[in-house]
Amino acid sequence: MNKLAMTQAIMVAKETKELTWQKIGEAVGMSAEWTASACLGMNSMSAETAKKLCHVLDLGTEVELTLQKYPNKQWDQAVPTDPLLYRLYEMMSVYGPAIKEIVHEKCGDGIVSAIDFALNIEKKPDPKGERIVITLDGKFLPYKSW
Amino acid sequence: MNKLAMTQAIMVAKETKELTWQKIGEAVGMSAEWTASACLGMNSMSAETAKKLCHVLDLGTEVELTLQKYPNKQWDQAVPTDPLLYRLYEMMSVYGPAIKEIVHEKCGDGIVSAIDFALNIEKKPDPKGERIVITLDGKFLPYKSW
Amino acid sequence: MNKLAMTQAIMVAKETKELTWQKIGEAVGMSAEWTASACLGMNSMSAETAKKLCHVLDLGTEVELTLQKYPNKQWDQAVPTDPLLYRLYEMMSVYGPAIKEIVHEKCGDGIVSAIDFALNIEKKPDPKGERIVITLDGKFLPYKSW
Amino acid sequence: MNKLAMTQAIMVAKETKELTWQKIGEAVGMSAEWTASACLGMNSMSAETAKKLCHVLDLGTEVELTLQKYPNKQWDQAVPTDPLLYRLYEMMSVYGPAIKEIVHEKCGDGIVSAIDFALNIEKKPDPKGERIVITLDGKFLPYKSW
Amino acid sequence: MNKLAMTQAIMVAKETKELTWQKIGEAVGMSAEWTASACLGMNSMSAETAKKLCHVLDLGTEVELTLQKYPNKQWDQAVPTDPLLYRLYEMMSVYGPAIKEIVHEKCGDGIVSAIDFALNIEKKPDPKGERIVITLDGKFLPYKSW
Amino acid sequence: MNKLAMTQAIMVAKETKELTWQKIGEAVGMSAEWTASACLGMNSMSAETAKKLCHVLDLGTEVELTLQKYPNKQWDQAVPTDPLLYRLYEMMSVYGPAIKEIVHEKCGDGIVSAIDFALNIEKKPDPKGERIVITLDGKFLPYKSW
Amino acid sequence: MNKLAMTQAIMVAKETKELTWQKIGEAVGMSAEWTASACLGMNSMSAETAKKLCHVLDLGTEVELTLQKYPNKQWDQAVPTDPLLYRLYEMMSVYGPAIKEIVHEKCGDGIVSAIDFALNIEKKPDPKGERIVITLDGKFLPYKSW
Amino acid sequence: MNKLAMTQAIMVAKETKELTWQKIGEAVGMSAEWTASACLGMNSMSAETAKKLCHVLDLGTEVELTLQKYPNKQWDQAVPTDPLLYRLYEMMSVYGPAIKEIVHEKCGDGIVSAIDFALNIEKKPDPKGERIVITLDGKFLPYKSW
Amino acid sequence: MNKLAMTQAIMVAKETKELTWQKIGEAVGMSAEWTASACLGMNSMSAETAKKLCHVLDLGTEVELTLQKYPNKQWDQAVPTDPLLYRLYEMMSVYGPAIKEIVHEKCGDGIVSAIDFALNIEKKPDPKGERIVITLDGKFLPYKSW
Amino acid sequence: MNKLAMTQAIMVAKETKELTWQKIGEAVGMSAEWTASACLGMNSMSAETAKKLCHVLDLGTEVELTLQKYPNKQWDQAVPTDPLLYRLYEMMSVYGPAIKEIVHEKCGDGIVSAIDFALNIEKKPDPKGERIVITLDGKFLPYKSW
Repeated sequence: MNKLAMTQAIMVAKETKELTWQKIGEAVGMSAEWTASACLGMNSMSAETAKKLCHVLDLGTEVELTLQKYPNKQWDQAVPTDPLLYRLYEMMSVYGPAIKEIVHEKCGDGIVSAIDFALNIEKKPDPKGERIVITLDGKFLPYKSW
Repeated sequence: MNKLAMTQAIMVAKETKELTWQKIGEAVGMSAEWTASACLGMNSMSAETAKKLCHVLDLGTEVELTLQKYPNKQWDQAVPTDPLLYRLYEMMSVYGPAIKEIVHEKCGDGIVSAIDFALNIEKKPDPKGERIVITLDGKFLPYKSW
Repeated sequence: MNKLAMTQAIMVAKETKELTWQKIGEAVGMSAEWTASACLGMNSMSAETAKKLCHVLDLGTEVELTLQKYPNKQWDQAVPTDPLLYRLYEMMSVYGPAIKEIVHEKCGDGIVSAIDFALNIEKKPDPKGERIVITLDGKFLPYKSW
Repeated sequence: MNKLAMTQAIMVAKETKELTWQKIGEAVGMSAEWTASACLGMNSMSAETAKKLCHVLDLGTEVELTLQKYPNKQWDQAVPTDPLLYRLYEMMSVYGPAIKEIVHEKCGDGIVSAIDFALNIEKKPDPKGERIVITLDGKFLPYKSW
Repeated sequence: MNKLAMTQAIMVAKETKELTWQKIGEAVGMSAEWTASACLGMNSMSAETAKKLCHVLDLGTEVELTLQKYPNKQWDQAVPTDPLLYRLYEMMSVYGPAIKEIVHEKCGDGIVSAIDFALNIEKKPDPKGERIVITLDGKFLPYKSW
Repeated sequence: MNKLAMTQAIMVAKETKELTWQKIGEAVGMSAEWTASACLGMNSMSAETAKKLCHVLDLGTEVELTLQKYPNKQWDQAVPTDPLLYRLYEMMSVYGPAIKEIVHEKCGDGIVSAIDFALNIEKKPDPKGERIVITLDGKFLPYKSW
Repeated sequence: MNKLAMTQAIMVAKETKELTWQKIGEAVGMSAEWTASACLGMNSMSAETAKKLCHVLDLGTEVELTLQKYPNKQWDQAVPTDPLLYRLYEMMSVYGPAIKEIVHEKCGDGIVSAIDFALNIEKKPDPKGERIVITLDGKFLPYKSW
Repeated sequence: MNKLAMTQAIMVAKETKELTWQKIGEAVGMSAEWTASACLGMNSMSAETAKKLCHVLDLGTEVELTLQKYPNKQWDQAVPTDPLLYRLYEMMSVYGPAIKEIVHEKCGDGIVSAIDFALNIEKKPDPKGERIVITLDGKFLPYKSW
Repeated sequence: MNKLAMTQAIMVAKETKELTWQKIGEAVGMSAEWTASACLGMNSMSAETAKKLCHVLDLGTEVELTLQKYPNKQWDQAVPTDPLLYRLYEMMSVYGPAIKEIVHEKCGDGIVSAIDFALNIEKKPDPKGERIVITLDGKFLPYKSW
Repeated sequence: MNKLAMTQAIMVAKETKELTWQKIGEAVGMSAEWTASACLGMNSMSAETAKKLCHVLDLGTEVELTLQKYPNKQWDQAVPTDPLLYRLYEMMSVYGPAIKEIVHEKCGDGIVSAIDFALNIEKKPDPKGERIVITLDGKFLPYKSW
């Protein structure tokens, strides 16, 4: 079973059982965001977490094993077309140079890790219409010289 | 004067005066992030803010007027090569599908605005090495049907 | 059932029943333009509208459910080759800079939303040959500063 | 003088004289949209209109002659990055297939001309925030068979 | 039945019956060039012509209906690799600027329509080796100003 | 002097002397089409023709010598954006497969030369609006086997 | 049967019968290079040669007919990745400008035909390690002026 | 002095002195092909050869030193547009798979070196029109296993 | 059997037998790195090694024969997206110019072979967290002049 | 002064003083590889190291300050064309999947850092011709789950 088939099996089970990522995440003891990411084939699960997930969703051993495989992270569209995904791309393109300035000002020459990394999404009420707050939390890695 | 020349003038003045974005932002009454973005030519300033900025940096009328122009936001590299910028791109590409799932789960079909939008960057101490926390805050816009 | 299979089922039913988008739109209480868009997999329908549509076209529950799913809006051709689609692309490329000038002149710095958005298509008689009038109606969103 | 230098001269004069496209268009007897497009180098002016325009803006013969040249319409970015321009591109990409369906339904096999074409932009007040309405008006051209 | 399957059915029938495009064109009362184009899925046929074509090639109703559908004209290779097709591309790229000069000299600012358009191919004997003469005949469309 | 500077010098002289390609071609004893192509830097002239051309346009030795250089034929846009040039590209893309069929039917496996090649452009009056007829005349080259 | 299936059938038969391109070429009376090219779907065979080839390889009528079809020569990778193929691409890219200089010096303005063309590959012993010598032999085609 | 300026200086001197690559090559004791390649900036010369070349062309020390620099071999066009260069690209693309087959048949798994490599160009008389014969001679390098 | 199917068969067998590349490499008498590469279809095995590998993994003749075929080395993504693969690409892009300087300083004008090449991967303990050391070992090939 | 001008100044000084990267590295107390990289504008130097470097090369304050700036690491060619650089790219593309397998086998799911990273280049004598050994040494970073 490959990651694509795994994702499809999970999506069908999630829909049938009328579960949310929030509830699945709670059931496996991880955040909704990371759980969704692993179920979409973009992260690997520990054996224990994969077992819990398949228990919650009533899925078999094949899904359980495939969740543990180390993924080959690929995306087809260098620039995404889906409007929600494009807006994320646009935020990073418009504000990327400013982020670079501020990060260097705070920590010196280096990068923000996308590996030692976590993200969180919250809905924020607002009189003019609700807002989404996405928090990206990555380790600062200074360049090494030698 | 175009935005490129404006940015160069600002960078030289900022260096000469040994100012940080943090201090410049405070002096003009805006966040460091947004101020950097406008100085890099990716946002337009109000007349009042531009005046304050040129006062702080000892810059002339041409810079003041150019800061107020509505920019044509362009970037050359569809996929950025600078490691700091690439990591931002990678975060949005690896976690984009998961973000889409969670946003739809929280708010239904729609997008997170990159226009009615603000971002904040903080340094977070951590025993294993300091971290950077980037907060993206955008209005949720539901798709209209008609 | 994915959106592609859904569209094919709808197109066959529409042809068999000799219906037009105009008539289908009227039957479900929405515009022909938006109804076509949702049936082509580029918008999600409310449960109620999906039910009406499947009633008009004599289609089953799978189509009804798939119409309600939030689509991942993708297109393969960054620049379309079909002459009708290319002309739309060309209009926006040739006149894009002029539209930007006029919009900024009327409303200041910001964009025209493609989400809080509606479009209408009319045939206009003309002695030199009939014309098509496409109306794009989007909310103006001013850039936020912070 | 090439079209680029012409545009720069016009933009400086327009700013100095504090004119709008609306007023310039009225002065030369054409729409603001088409006038802006010609001044941006994407259309050629008749000798008479070019003369009027240079009169309004106090510009010399070189600009007058360059305005009359037939432009080589080029754009660098197949997919524009400026958010206002990208939204126009996105509208045509998301709704292109639906527009194709409706145009064929109304007029049969053919295209909407981008040459025998005019466009108009209006601001529309709305309690939830002002809207922009862009009207595209092109001749329907049926495919010829032979 | 989609256009691809239609083309394959026609090609097999044409080969089996040992027909040429010349003969098929004569039988349906259209040119060989346009008939080939419609059979390759790049133009739509009238009901009457489609009927005649299926009669000549002994093909069924599905082909007859598919020939009448309005095609979505797509090509995969922006620059074709087949040497015959590449040479056509090269002709238009090498001589495009000269064609633009001459067309503008003869008719003013505008384009040559690819929609109100016909093409003809003839073999021309020549002592140094036979030649092919391709004639492109399109309506001149002047740009509209407004 | 490179070809680009040569073209600019020729264009200025042509405009100043109010000449057409038709008249320049006649004066040098070549077609307007080929003459324009060589002046645009896409073909090399014989010494004799270059001399005549510089005589007609009152241009010096540098232009005369540069006209004789063998050009490196380059174009920046794989797919041209100018509407007139795009229509030529579209004609060859939409009708390329049909042209391939008909050429093979008439002459067997081979190509139409873009080197042993000539083209002619005529204006054709028509009650519905004037037409442009472009004739492409290339030697048929059969594939060699060995 | 398409060219791809034809190639696969030939490759299996060649392997089973333990034949080389050298031997197959000799058996059909053509060079190994051209024979391989036609079997890989990049050239069409005469009826007689195709018959001989199918006799040698014990293949049926379908392969025989498909070998005679005029191919649509396509390749997926504009720049090949296989190291052997890339080196060929690199040779032509690094030495292309020098080849252009020398060909023009020897024959004037024109090209080397890739259609009226043959190629030969030999192994050349050498004390430092064997070498491969590839000979490209194409007709010189001078540009036509008119 | 960079390689580009070096090439321009050499081309002017070569033209002024009415020399050919053949003669320049003979004067420096190298082939015309390799000499042209080094002068075009695609190879580095030994100090001795560079000295001879500058002697023949009456060029100064700067050119002599720049000829000896190790070049960064770059080309702008992944697929060249100049017809002569494109034909070379096409030869390698159409016949690449056949060359791969024959090289593997003769020498096993490996590549033909583009570094330990030489090329030669000859004009070959032919009653049907002169031909160009290009000989590529590269060392066969077998893949290493370990 | 093609290389893709071969790889899948090997991966399943490796998993079922709970083997590592280290152990498989030892069993066939080759390095883990090269063995993995050949099993992934990027190198060809000798008959003897292929036999040993199929013995260790309990695989049949088809896999054994396919391992010996000379691969067509292809990759889909010119720039890889998987973070591990991208970092390798980034190392070579960021440090490529420096590597070029140092290699030329040590050995003169030439390249490092990717064919007469071996690589080794070791884990290196480190108090700040374990490191990976990749050693690339290629023959230096000087450019030939002639 | 930007990084490009800085690099040019350093290269001229290095040539004039007949220094090697080896010697420059020793003089500033860093490796030749890292020193070259910083001088080529791909890394930032500490104030102390920059001072030493400018002392060795007799360069002024502007170079000293520019060496300390945090670079925006950019490269124009996604796939490099220079043969030495391409071979590095090819190594990582051909062996990337094998490296991924072995790294995951040794350390689990994660990446090899290109930031906490060092590289070393050695010349290795060999009877069959000297070899280059490049050592890449990066920290293993395991993916975080949360």
